[in-house]
Amino acid sequence: MQRIALGVSYRGGAYHGWQSQPDGQTVQDKLEQALSAFAAMPVSTLCAGRTDAGVHGINQVVHLDTPLRREEFSWVRGVNRYLPPDIAVQWCRPVAPDFHARNSARGRRYRYVLLESPVRPALESGQVGWTFRPLALEPMQAAAALLLGEYDFSAFRAAGCQALSPVKTLRHIGIARHGAYWSFDFEASAFLHHMVRNIMGCLIAVGQGTRPVAWMAEVLASRRRETAAPTFAPDGLYFVGPHYDARHAIPDHVPALDWLS
Amino acid sequence: MQRIALGVSYRGGAYHGWQSQPDGQTVQDKLEQALSAFAAMPVSTLCAGRTDAGVHGINQVVHLDTPLRREEFSWVRGVNRYLPPDIAVQWCRPVAPDFHARNSARGRRYRYVLLESPVRPALESGQVGWTFRPLALEPMQAAAALLLGEYDFSAFRAAGCQALSPVKTLRHIGIARHGAYWSFDFEASAFLHHMVRNIMGCLIAVGQGTRPVAWMAEVLASRRRETAAPTFAPDGLYFVGPHYDARHAIPDHVPALDWLS
Repeated sequence: MQRIALGVSYRGGAYHGWQSQPDGQTVQDKLEQALSAFAAMPVSTLCAGRTDAGVHGINQVVHLDTPLRREEFSWVRGVNRYLPPDIAVQWCRPVAPDFHARNSARGRRYRYVLLESPVRPALESGQVGWTFRPLALEPMQAAAALLLGEYDFSAFRAAGCQALSPVKTLRHIGIARHGAYWSFDFEASAFLHHMVRNIMGCLIAVGQGTRPVAWMAEVLASRRRETAAPTFAPDGLYFVGPHYDARHAIPDHVPALDWLS
Repeated sequence: MQRIALGVSYRGGAYHGWQSQPDGQTVQDKLEQALSAFAAMPVSTLCAGRTDAGVHGINQVVHLDTPLRREEFSWVRGVNRYLPPDIAVQWCRPVAPDFHARNSARGRRYRYVLLESPVRPALESGQVGWTFRPLALEPMQAAAALLLGEYDFSAFRAAGCQALSPVKTLRHIGIARHGAYWSFDFEASAFLHHMVRNIMGCLIAVGQGTRPVAWMAEVLASRRRETAAPTFAPDGLYFVGPHYDARHAIPDHVPALDWLS
């Protein structure tokens, strides 16, 4: 058996999230169906970060064990033939048996792309979030800074979250404006279920001026989900990808439009 | 009656092009249904540039005549309530009775966005064209320069084209690389049916080295469609919009991601 890692890009709008479900309408289901068709045997995968319904992946990483020996690019091209147009394997690498897409990850990155406009998106519907109220950068940056470090993030955790611990290390939040669009970059050891979308709801409340900066610290300290803002839309959320120790030689970048990379 | 102009953005993938058809699955049909619902009376429109199935619009301009008096932004918000998520009115302006979305246009701009990668697009499927063969910039620029000016563009004209004359003035072709992506900007007095997609097919043949630069001049001079390359995919084609004399005060820009503007 050989362990291999794959990088997968997908647009999440048509799928019920990453994780396999009986209805088969998830990204994992589509990927495993394509892998099994290519390998002519059942193939199961394990991913670096399960994404919700409607959330997109840029460099999602999975691993699998297989007796099949093929060139790296044969996997890419062969599996893509069986995938729908909005999912594609980007690269394939043989990895050591101790590589584990989830457990080996040293950190994960997400990006949220938001349109600030009186008019809702059309060209990018399902691919960007939207606010019609203007946002102020500095209060959002100040509120974001209050979340950096190792904390119990229970206030931003969905009820169904399966993480063993609510304590995570949030290393970076970068906020930038690009014309009518905003990007919010998040980097952490790992994320709880809905954590980015719940933080986004709170950052936007601060950016719109409906909540003061200090409120973010109160929400965090409360460790109670009901003190935070509602979960923001999945539309603009991209799982940029995990990163690993360099010895695993996992690509940390795939071709993506500027606004996503 | 008051004549008003509207700017409309849309993602074309789900529609059978712009122009109204009996099946009702066109952008014009959806827009006129929404306008009629908002106005509570039948409304018909005339656009600056009819786009093909799968082609997108950034600042498509239409005009219509209506007895209904509403604030400009009431039109925008009200009509958008009746439109599907991938179509949205961006702005509304009262215009003089002699303004005509098609006949008053002094020029039109299109952009083609192309991914150059061994792997097909997934995140932007239907929204970018794709070539797995590498492209060279300079031969494409040299070939594009051979098309600038007033010519009979019959070699790049689809059989069903309804234009009165095949003679158009192609004013500008700008080609740029952005990482794995290419943008091709076209500006002309007007475009024939399939003209941009047919020129794209030829530019890509030159960029891949399968045709020499001088071949572009031969194709143009032949005025015969069968000498040119096959019509390239609609996926990456965006009608950026028309432009008008300043006295009409028509917005020539709407919020759009950097790679589209």
